[in-house]
Amino acid sequence: MGGMSEQIAPTDRTRLRRLPQRGVFDRAVIEAILDEGLICHVSFCDEAGRPCVLPTGYARDGGRLLLHGSRKNAALLAALSSEMTVCVTLLDGLVLARSAFHHSFNYRSVVLYGRPVEVTDRAEKLAALERIVEHIVPGRAAGSRPPNDKELDATLVAALPIDEVSAKVRTGPPKDDEEDMDLGFWAGVIPVRLDAAPGEPAPDLPAGIEPPEYVRRYRRAIS
Amino acid sequence: MGGMSEQIAPTDRTRLRRLPQRGVFDRAVIEAILDEGLICHVSFCDEAGRPCVLPTGYARDGGRLLLHGSRKNAALLAALSSEMTVCVTLLDGLVLARSAFHHSFNYRSVVLYGRPVEVTDRAEKLAALERIVEHIVPGRAAGSRPPNDKELDATLVAALPIDEVSAKVRTGPPKDDEEDMDLGFWAGVIPVRLDAAPGEPAPDLPAGIEPPEYVRRYRRAIS
Repeated sequence: MGGMSEQIAPTDRTRLRRLPQRGVFDRAVIEAILDEGLICHVSFCDEAGRPCVLPTGYARDGGRLLLHGSRKNAALLAALSSEMTVCVTLLDGLVLARSAFHHSFNYRSVVLYGRPVEVTDRAEKLAALERIVEHIVPGRAAGSRPPNDKELDATLVAALPIDEVSAKVRTGPPKDDEEDMDLGFWAGVIPVRLDAAPGEPAPDLPAGIEPPEYVRRYRRAIS
Repeated sequence: MGGMSEQIAPTDRTRLRRLPQRGVFDRAVIEAILDEGLICHVSFCDEAGRPCVLPTGYARDGGRLLLHGSRKNAALLAALSSEMTVCVTLLDGLVLARSAFHHSFNYRSVVLYGRPVEVTDRAEKLAALERIVEHIVPGRAAGSRPPNDKELDATLVAALPIDEVSAKVRTGPPKDDEEDMDLGFWAGVIPVRLDAAPGEPAPDLPAGIEPPEYVRRYRRAIS
């Protein structure tokens, strides 16, 4: 995160009208959130103009977000052929204030708007799928069989430019009103995070295949 | 979860066309997912028909989902005045198959469609806000100051009936193709879950106020 940080230009949609101090347009911060998340929520409007939402895996590849799924997945096909909004949310803490009103979450979220473009070039598609596996479990691409032609054909890959994007971040203790400070209630933050347990081998795993280091040492929170 | 379980009728939107074995219409399962989640992603279409998504807190109150936010929050106001789709996703594991293609997540998710109705009755609104605090930290409503009139007026509360709804659940080990079983790769699941750390007292907390039991013993995963 050293060096010059690139600031992203806000648009009408990404500029925060409320609590603007929580808005972040620093590309390095946005990328770090995208890199830590495991799933995103894709929002799109169907042909009748009704809202749809789809949780799915993804990966960041430089300045674009990669999405993938089965060609038989009608919801994904609809999402990938329309304008979409993608949200990645990391929950960091439960903020307990003296007043119910000032309760909050500590979180880091990214919202990204755009229209995905299908990745059709075979080599590019293979690289994108490898990137998605590596995003979820770094080291795993070399520890599994790459897609064959049939699997590649059955998979749709799309890329969304990370351009119209912003992050929102809340950190730190609760902020109570002055007159509530002496109420005697406990106040503070319960930190939360996604933790991984030791890998559970598949029941049909042949004896003698030990979990690789990227499984034994799996840990998500990068910060 | 004992006794008769209520089955929810699928609609065109909630019926799974792909991998129907992952679709769940059992109300008890759907409610358990909603009760374990901390945040939901609200999807809606803006006036120009563009998709929007908003991560936010919520609570389940019997057969309805409660949402709330500041009256100054333009995105929330837009969401609450239109048809919305709400998604709650719990990530349970990273599924590592021998083939990249069969990699997956273990997860439990709920998607709920509907049009929220504002809660305006004062007593009902207070009860809804208490319910939201209790959903996030059980025990906390009695451990904090309830909203006053000014705070109530500044807060919008809406309820969404849990009617057009379905869950999707994947559990268990990877499912590999027969011809990949002897490739020698490790296969299995890395379990993940949201874990809480000990509560961090606010820097301005007076000496002698110890964390209550609901903070010391906070634990999210109910199952």
